[in-house]
Amino acid sequence: MRVEILAVGTELLLGQIANTNARWMSESLAAIGADVLHHQVVGDNLDRIVEAMRLSAGRADVVIVTGGLGPTQDDITRDALAVVMGAPMVRHAELEDLLREKFRSFGRREMPGSNLRQADVPVGARYLTPSRGTAPGLVADLAGATRIYAVPGVPEEMVEMMEGTILPELASESAAVVRSRVLRCAGIGESALAERVDDLFTASANPTIAFLASSGEVKVRITAKAATAEAAERLIEPVVDEVRRRLGDVVFTTNDETLEAAIVRLLTGAGMTLACAESITGGGVGARITSVPGASEVFVGSGVVYGNEAKAGVLGVSRETLEGPGPVSEACALEMAAGARRVFGSDLGLSLTGAAGPESHGGAPPGVIWIALDGDDVTHARGFQVPGERDRVRRWAEQAALDLVRRHLEGMPLPASDRSI
Amino acid sequence: MRVEILAVGTELLLGQIANTNARWMSESLAAIGADVLHHQVVGDNLDRIVEAMRLSAGRADVVIVTGGLGPTQDDITRDALAVVMGAPMVRHAELEDLLREKFRSFGRREMPGSNLRQADVPVGARYLTPSRGTAPGLVADLAGATRIYAVPGVPEEMVEMMEGTILPELASESAAVVRSRVLRCAGIGESALAERVDDLFTASANPTIAFLASSGEVKVRITAKAATAEAAERLIEPVVDEVRRRLGDVVFTTNDETLEAAIVRLLTGAGMTLACAESITGGGVGARITSVPGASEVFVGSGVVYGNEAKAGVLGVSRETLEGPGPVSEACALEMAAGARRVFGSDLGLSLTGAAGPESHGGAPPGVIWIALDGDDVTHARGFQVPGERDRVRRWAEQAALDLVRRHLEGMPLPASDRSI
Repeated sequence: MRVEILAVGTELLLGQIANTNARWMSESLAAIGADVLHHQVVGDNLDRIVEAMRLSAGRADVVIVTGGLGPTQDDITRDALAVVMGAPMVRHAELEDLLREKFRSFGRREMPGSNLRQADVPVGARYLTPSRGTAPGLVADLAGATRIYAVPGVPEEMVEMMEGTILPELASESAAVVRSRVLRCAGIGESALAERVDDLFTASANPTIAFLASSGEVKVRITAKAATAEAAERLIEPVVDEVRRRLGDVVFTTNDETLEAAIVRLLTGAGMTLACAESITGGGVGARITSVPGASEVFVGSGVVYGNEAKAGVLGVSRETLEGPGPVSEACALEMAAGARRVFGSDLGLSLTGAAGPESHGGAPPGVIWIALDGDDVTHARGFQVPGERDRVRRWAEQAALDLVRRHLEGMPLPASDRSI
Repeated sequence: MRVEILAVGTELLLGQIANTNARWMSESLAAIGADVLHHQVVGDNLDRIVEAMRLSAGRADVVIVTGGLGPTQDDITRDALAVVMGAPMVRHAELEDLLREKFRSFGRREMPGSNLRQADVPVGARYLTPSRGTAPGLVADLAGATRIYAVPGVPEEMVEMMEGTILPELASESAAVVRSRVLRCAGIGESALAERVDDLFTASANPTIAFLASSGEVKVRITAKAATAEAAERLIEPVVDEVRRRLGDVVFTTNDETLEAAIVRLLTGAGMTLACAESITGGGVGARITSVPGASEVFVGSGVVYGNEAKAGVLGVSRETLEGPGPVSEACALEMAAGARRVFGSDLGLSLTGAAGPESHGGAPPGVIWIALDGDDVTHARGFQVPGERDRVRRWAEQAALDLVRRHLEGMPLPASDRSI
């Protein structure tokens, strides 16, 4: 089944927003075995929408149009669909009632007359009733056997119609099922990772593998296509096992969870609590851990100690350390971790200090990071240097620190410092 | 000048990444007065890339292709360009030398032979020398007067060639200049904001206005087109002034800076320091403030006190408050702010506590937030309730807290609590 996605909206062509609808739709369509071969984007212009719809309809089995179904004069996707169908528009009384009812429930006084355009449907098309928003979706089967769906551009309203109607309809008509598993890895680069597993996939078109790197993390997606979900899982399972075997302890999940979610899961399983001492990251590690529901059971708090006074006064880092090796040092990281553990009364203390740039900090050049973990059976510091901008350096520090906790809780060897530090 | 963007890459059609290149390119092209009328996306398939290039070339003056210039067998944009030009490919010795030199400088031992494909250029095309990556860009003027640029898909490498060559070339050929100003507003919703200024733009096609809302913030972009930059600025300036006058104290910048950058700027200007006490946000406010270079001059630190023990032990919140009104209360927020100021020795203390959800916390239902600011001449708490998921509630808390500091430093009235809290 060939599917094409057509996004309508001048704001996309002006670069005011990214076409995240097409990304979400593509991912969801891939998951039901549909082949998305083209995306198009056009502005709020009748001729160009019609032309794009005709182009799509000529080469795809299913076209999904997103955007241009709202109440304003700019919203002309339904007019374009009527042109492509060669059908007149008719106003549906039950949609008028629905729109008026929605307006009342939103607590607005009176519905502008222009909103009634949303009750118009080309003759021969059916409509999808909106739950969250006010814009009905449209479905038309063209003479040439192509089906066109039109859904709103507001992401939540698009997702509602895709999940509620379109994906189930297409899945029931699709001969194939696609299943993916995502492994996530920390502490390894994309090319080093690819070298270890690439040979598994060069000869195989099913399952396939894809790598996606972001700072300090690589996602490995293994995707299989089969007649049933069970058959697809049977294709994936041994490959996931083999990839995991080859990658070893850099894999922190085979279930696409975030590193912070893995930390909360592991702490919860071990019945242990964690406190942090953050300098370079300013609170970013605590913010990530507490983004996970249930974090309050295992995360006690964090001393964000940006200045030297705070490091000494709040966490008890010694004057000797601050004036000797300085705030970006192994000694300071170890004292911060021990201080966090003591002040917050936690089982584990995790610390991060470093120079994020663009300036040097505490005598250390930009990119130098020290992290440390302190607990009853662990006292470990790691120093390393990473290239790049402030945001990237901070992100690397977070990843490395969270991964230190992960490795400790999984009983794995803890990484040593860079030789040059 | 009509420009079309063609992104090449199967990962886009699988939904593994969003087409953020097209967004960035569109925004940059709009800024030089170019009209982007279409985006296309195709996968790594020669026939479809050729077909898409021909379609673009038939309707645009300039086509910018991104992706498919790398060293692997999947990267076939240069082959497609040769087909569209009807020209053979020739290997350039100076590009071969460049590739070998880059490989040496990356510290790799030997360059795979397949990388030499990147030294191939269709006869009649010129190339753009890469600085960051290894993939040269390509430029071809077709017989029908359309110019095709091909740049890498890696965002940094695309940006380098766009900023270094393509945008300057197109700007020098463009008759119009476009300038934008972005005002950012906190503490107001998109529709309430639009109502106050919409009439300024209903009759005006130049300047135009666009609104973009995200949790707790609305961007207002005012865009003008003119023959020169000065003329465009003269069109924008009075409109910016009028919009600012009407919106009043919700505008925190007319220069597109982030709220955290505005805070660092205002604190620096006032010669004051800030410390935080974060519960609901887990460190997110500190992380945002310290993302701004130079924050270390004004941000001292933060007590992230997730549990009641930490609130009492680290920041000195009283047992009476924790056992009476509880950790999500006006009293607790005020004591946290005062505690942060005392423990970190700062001029201002800012606190955040609340129930992010999905569970209730400290007797408060999800979405209830208390923030407070404490200083020599300010003691103010604000309670409010916001709907939505955990991430959204936390983001609203951050925005409201940062905006409290902003309003205090700008001498503006501080918002009161919701009546229902």
